[in-house]
Amino acid sequence: MTQASSADLVKLLQARYGEAPLTADALNETIATLLNHRSVRAYTDKPIPEKTIELIIAAAQAASTSSNLQTWSVVAVTDTASKERLSQFAGNQAWVKNCPVFLVWIADLARLEALGKKRAVPAESLNYVEMLLMATIDSALAAQNAAIAAESLGLGVVYIGGMRNQPEEVAKELGLPPKTFATFGMCLGYPEPAKLSSIRPRLPQSAILHKEKYDAQAYEAAAASYNAVMEGFYKAQAMKPQGEWDLHSLNRVRGPEAMTGRDRLATALKNLGFQLK
Amino acid sequence: MTQASSADLVKLLQARYGEAPLTADALNETIATLLNHRSVRAYTDKPIPEKTIELIIAAAQAASTSSNLQTWSVVAVTDTASKERLSQFAGNQAWVKNCPVFLVWIADLARLEALGKKRAVPAESLNYVEMLLMATIDSALAAQNAAIAAESLGLGVVYIGGMRNQPEEVAKELGLPPKTFATFGMCLGYPEPAKLSSIRPRLPQSAILHKEKYDAQAYEAAAASYNAVMEGFYKAQAMKPQGEWDLHSLNRVRGPEAMTGRDRLATALKNLGFQLK
Repeated sequence: MTQASSADLVKLLQARYGEAPLTADALNETIATLLNHRSVRAYTDKPIPEKTIELIIAAAQAASTSSNLQTWSVVAVTDTASKERLSQFAGNQAWVKNCPVFLVWIADLARLEALGKKRAVPAESLNYVEMLLMATIDSALAAQNAAIAAESLGLGVVYIGGMRNQPEEVAKELGLPPKTFATFGMCLGYPEPAKLSSIRPRLPQSAILHKEKYDAQAYEAAAASYNAVMEGFYKAQAMKPQGEWDLHSLNRVRGPEAMTGRDRLATALKNLGFQLK
Repeated sequence: MTQASSADLVKLLQARYGEAPLTADALNETIATLLNHRSVRAYTDKPIPEKTIELIIAAAQAASTSSNLQTWSVVAVTDTASKERLSQFAGNQAWVKNCPVFLVWIADLARLEALGKKRAVPAESLNYVEMLLMATIDSALAAQNAAIAAESLGLGVVYIGGMRNQPEEVAKELGLPPKTFATFGMCLGYPEPAKLSSIRPRLPQSAILHKEKYDAQAYEAAAASYNAVMEGFYKAQAMKPQGEWDLHSLNRVRGPEAMTGRDRLATALKNLGFQLK
């Protein structure tokens, strides 16, 4: 990325918040990279060098990890047939198949489990919800560092929550041992310039950032103004779903029939060796 | 951060992996910021401008969020008495009290719940483990963007998993509504230069990055070499715990008595309105 100017930053913030741009007193290349994020689902056929992947994973490992336990792993999938199957598990998302490298991020308690067996000491905490959450958070912090590193190198990414649609099938495909779980996937590739999406606006900061105490009323005005911003955005982008953000978001969470299999995630996690104590 | 050189990058990678530095073919300011991370627990008394916090949160909101549902919030705490109590809930971590701004990251399903009530439509999916994980991941992706933005602006951060020690007490302190949950905290402040910690080595990449399939044997050689790297690191830093990484990590997960209250997280989550279906 070339050196960004203050004007660029204001433009990026404007794109993110629609009507209500913040002003800002600081700018650097890293902030510009962060603000410039958009999901990328179409890629050129330029391959990604091995060393680039290694650098991206080094950046991922630099993220904080609880008590330095490093309870995460990542599987880099380039095999076409394997990407094809993973794409199907995720509800036929073509970009999973089409991206040159598909990273599957793993909440990984198997490493500590194996070390415990080797040392013949108990590792009973691994059976608790806490450790599942810790590993999930570890994997997310690492993945986000990887996403930022990738974007700074001119790559594009999109997260694939659909890895949680059929967790046991994903585990079988990747040869995951018990007490591991694919938290999400990430497509990686050089963006097709003609198909680059726009920066998507987000809720006004007033809905998200609370001062001292949580403000349970803040969402209301924020959601109303955001509905208007997003209605304009959907139209400008000729996107589906159109209409009001809150209504189609609510449609997405209306009940188990709309959860693309993820309503059975607790059962799947138990099948994968997490006791959820 | 000043313009980094290729030599700087090799040095950063060396610090991260101890004996086995990668070489790399790319370098930019963002990668250098990512690789340069270390936890910061001592701060100068320089205050953090409001606009800086807003820019950091804008960066956080730029992170990916599942289906654009934006199921997270953050509470910025500066009140001394409140930070003092949160510090106690986290097992008396002095830096929670001493940092100028303490950010508490929230997995937030309350916003969609409130919108559903207002629109008089069901939001039954919010009761499932899937949505708790989605919101937890959303909060982690956002937080990591905030951490990177903060570090690029010369601030230091440390994550506080101890927010999960006494979740109901944290919720009461911050006035959190049902179906929200503090996933972790983050101390924010300008680093005290004399107390800056060293970059902490991580497991060799061979343990973390799997190609095509998960390699269940990879951990073994990696952990052995990492034990040696970390033994040297602990000694050089005069740190506790000393000794072998795998043994003291295993001690950390030996059982509920070592979980500082987090063995009851499933119960706490139910008390906070998550049904864990």
